[in-house]
Amino acid sequence: MTDISPVLSAVDDNLPSSLERLFELVRIKSISTDPAYKAECRKAAEWLVRDLTSIGFDASIRDTAGHPMVVAHHDGATADAPHVLFYGHYDVQPVDPIDLWQDDPFDAKLKDIGEGRQVISGRGTSDDKGQLMTFVEACRAYKQVSGSLPIRVTILFEGEEESGSPSLKPFLDANSSELKADYALVCDTSMWDHETPAIAAALRGLVGEEIVITAADRDLHSGLFGGAAANPIHILTDILAGLHDETGRVTLPGFYDGVEETPDNIKASWDNLGRTAESFLGEVGLSIPAGEKGRSVLELTWARPTAEVNGITGGYTGEGFKTVIAAKASAKVSFRLVGRQDPAAIRESFRAYVRSKIPADCSVEFHEHGGSPAIHLSYDSPALTKAKSALSDEWAKPAVVIGMGGSIPIVGDFQKMLGMDSLMIGFGLTDDRIHSPNEKYELKSFHKGTRSWVRVLSALSAR
Amino acid sequence: MTDISPVLSAVDDNLPSSLERLFELVRIKSISTDPAYKAECRKAAEWLVRDLTSIGFDASIRDTAGHPMVVAHHDGATADAPHVLFYGHYDVQPVDPIDLWQDDPFDAKLKDIGEGRQVISGRGTSDDKGQLMTFVEACRAYKQVSGSLPIRVTILFEGEEESGSPSLKPFLDANSSELKADYALVCDTSMWDHETPAIAAALRGLVGEEIVITAADRDLHSGLFGGAAANPIHILTDILAGLHDETGRVTLPGFYDGVEETPDNIKASWDNLGRTAESFLGEVGLSIPAGEKGRSVLELTWARPTAEVNGITGGYTGEGFKTVIAAKASAKVSFRLVGRQDPAAIRESFRAYVRSKIPADCSVEFHEHGGSPAIHLSYDSPALTKAKSALSDEWAKPAVVIGMGGSIPIVGDFQKMLGMDSLMIGFGLTDDRIHSPNEKYELKSFHKGTRSWVRVLSALSAR
Repeated sequence: MTDISPVLSAVDDNLPSSLERLFELVRIKSISTDPAYKAECRKAAEWLVRDLTSIGFDASIRDTAGHPMVVAHHDGATADAPHVLFYGHYDVQPVDPIDLWQDDPFDAKLKDIGEGRQVISGRGTSDDKGQLMTFVEACRAYKQVSGSLPIRVTILFEGEEESGSPSLKPFLDANSSELKADYALVCDTSMWDHETPAIAAALRGLVGEEIVITAADRDLHSGLFGGAAANPIHILTDILAGLHDETGRVTLPGFYDGVEETPDNIKASWDNLGRTAESFLGEVGLSIPAGEKGRSVLELTWARPTAEVNGITGGYTGEGFKTVIAAKASAKVSFRLVGRQDPAAIRESFRAYVRSKIPADCSVEFHEHGGSPAIHLSYDSPALTKAKSALSDEWAKPAVVIGMGGSIPIVGDFQKMLGMDSLMIGFGLTDDRIHSPNEKYELKSFHKGTRSWVRVLSALSAR
Repeated sequence: MTDISPVLSAVDDNLPSSLERLFELVRIKSISTDPAYKAECRKAAEWLVRDLTSIGFDASIRDTAGHPMVVAHHDGATADAPHVLFYGHYDVQPVDPIDLWQDDPFDAKLKDIGEGRQVISGRGTSDDKGQLMTFVEACRAYKQVSGSLPIRVTILFEGEEESGSPSLKPFLDANSSELKADYALVCDTSMWDHETPAIAAALRGLVGEEIVITAADRDLHSGLFGGAAANPIHILTDILAGLHDETGRVTLPGFYDGVEETPDNIKASWDNLGRTAESFLGEVGLSIPAGEKGRSVLELTWARPTAEVNGITGGYTGEGFKTVIAAKASAKVSFRLVGRQDPAAIRESFRAYVRSKIPADCSVEFHEHGGSPAIHLSYDSPALTKAKSALSDEWAKPAVVIGMGGSIPIVGDFQKMLGMDSLMIGFGLTDDRIHSPNEKYELKSFHKGTRSWVRVLSALSAR
């Protein structure tokens, strides 16, 4: 099917009933972190299984040690159609503090907030029930009009995303052949702005290290020992200060192995987004980009690796003053990774550097706090190019391919455990107040998001 | 009087009664920090006034807002005799934990601890009742034999030294002309070892500064902002790491103004003391001198200035890991001063250096935590040379002129408020357990200490 306008029309016609279905789902209080809502979580999973079954999916509840998964399969229109895994989560955050909500968080409704904007208010409307229903509603319209889906679709909805996903890895491991697809669609992300859809193609990785330096075997009086005894805070500050050179680059040997320059056309598209240092940093009271010189704030946060000290402590830190030379000093340091930087190699390079700076009569301990590589989808992969074009057709402004400074663990798990890249497409907005009182999802996000998935499904089916 | 042997003999003969007097004074529970012992403090002051009066001093109790002072005057043998102010304190530390004492802390007695050592056990025997009574007993023997003292003596005993001396400065201020002498004798110090008397001629000064660096107006997520937003811990560690160059010297402009090299003969005498880096640092689990290269540990701690970070904190310092970029980071930094280094100039140089390293969109606050210049007595002043020779005559090994890494506030007050240098001479030993259970004072310290003061009084009278 090349002409998707009947499917888009069906989406438009369905909107009132689509909203009713979303409201029904929001009413189920599927708070995964609170054991009191265990039955509600199951109820949400059962609701999804029923709804997916009603549009022809082979859907089932899959029990885990925690809240159940929902898995559903649907064939594509042709035997050689691509196969995608769509991921979302049906659990929601708690609603405390409840008195800050303007409306009942579980009684979803449409509200007009002026400037022509209508929003769906309620817990989970944006994170993630509204987002996942855009995909389900797109499938529904497709089935309604054409009797089939253009590509083969597997759906995985989990119920523990807000609780740290304890059952996810074991589940992926036990069901890898069932879940493996050509690539995943992950809907837990945002648009660039009200008018500009976005595909996140890069997520930075992370290496966390804690170092504890020990000098003397007790705290010393700085009068009696100062000038002769090693001060572990001095050793530590020397080490940390030496992590960056004057241009802001990280000095660890081999640190930039696997880091590639962002293509000029991508950098140009980022520059076009108008996110200046002043606008980006101005929101938090700053104005001058730190870190590597000569790069934009978007490049710095999306496409460049960092070394950041997240915490430091040593000696006397209470009120007043104590002339002590501490026995110990420690710091927590994290590295954000991009491209093909190797977390293990970077950890080892850091440790070797630190060890080289420890005097022979002092010692250092290292504590590992997680390590994951960056997620990097080629900026011009066929799937991404198709999705980008499809999104651009729907929205007022062309879609942008962005990076994300943080991480979405599921994307790494898909890559590591199922050997599968992800397209991260979502229609949330940064002011949706997810995890906070008065969460909302724009009606436009819901409606045009559904239409977007119709376009994306169609585009991905093209060989 | 040039032959002091009759006076020394009188000291020897008096020893049993001298001990009885010290025991009487120790029995008075003059704990200044505990209001329950207020009357005992006064009783100790009255006891001292009676005793000093009995040997011809014009002695009186002088009330203060806290515990009283004792002031006593005695003329010298000639009208042009030098005038010294002898300072000591009659108050003592609390005795907790009482169950760790082997004997009643206020029932002073002689104990044989083997190896030919006899000690006087009890709270205040070393700090400072035993020490101050060596001087009083020396005056008593002098009066007994010659009917006069060789020099003019003013005595000042305070009763709040263990409570931070709140009344001392107002008292010095209100009585400056009465208390001002040619120099002070301060007995609150120790010998170098059992056989070697010491005169402390240098006390390091101190400048304390706290700096608080603020970057963003809130804590930031290091994924979203890392690489673009200023990290105040990075700014702080750069600043602190830059305080020392590779040779261990402090880099602040003008820092070494007023610092002089220690004379070779003094350095040689320190080298002869056999305090190696291994022996000094070995006691606290270290072995390699930090700080300025190519200097002995005694020179580093007695005669060289330092910059030490006494405390540092910023970001997340709890268990585990948090990928935060802190809004603030702070450090407490102290400088130990020597020679004629100017505390105000060093504070200003530090602040100017710190300000020069703060990015334009960040800020820094400074908090002042005290500042006092070093105390430095010329290593070859006539009074010091005389006292050194007198001490060397009494003990098995010649007296050494030492520095002290820490500070004795009264010495600074005498210099600042009364324009008067101090000779710091005492006969305590480092294992006297002052402030701890089982405090003791060696019988040898008491006996030969008294004989030492006889020799010092005589030596100081020589023109």
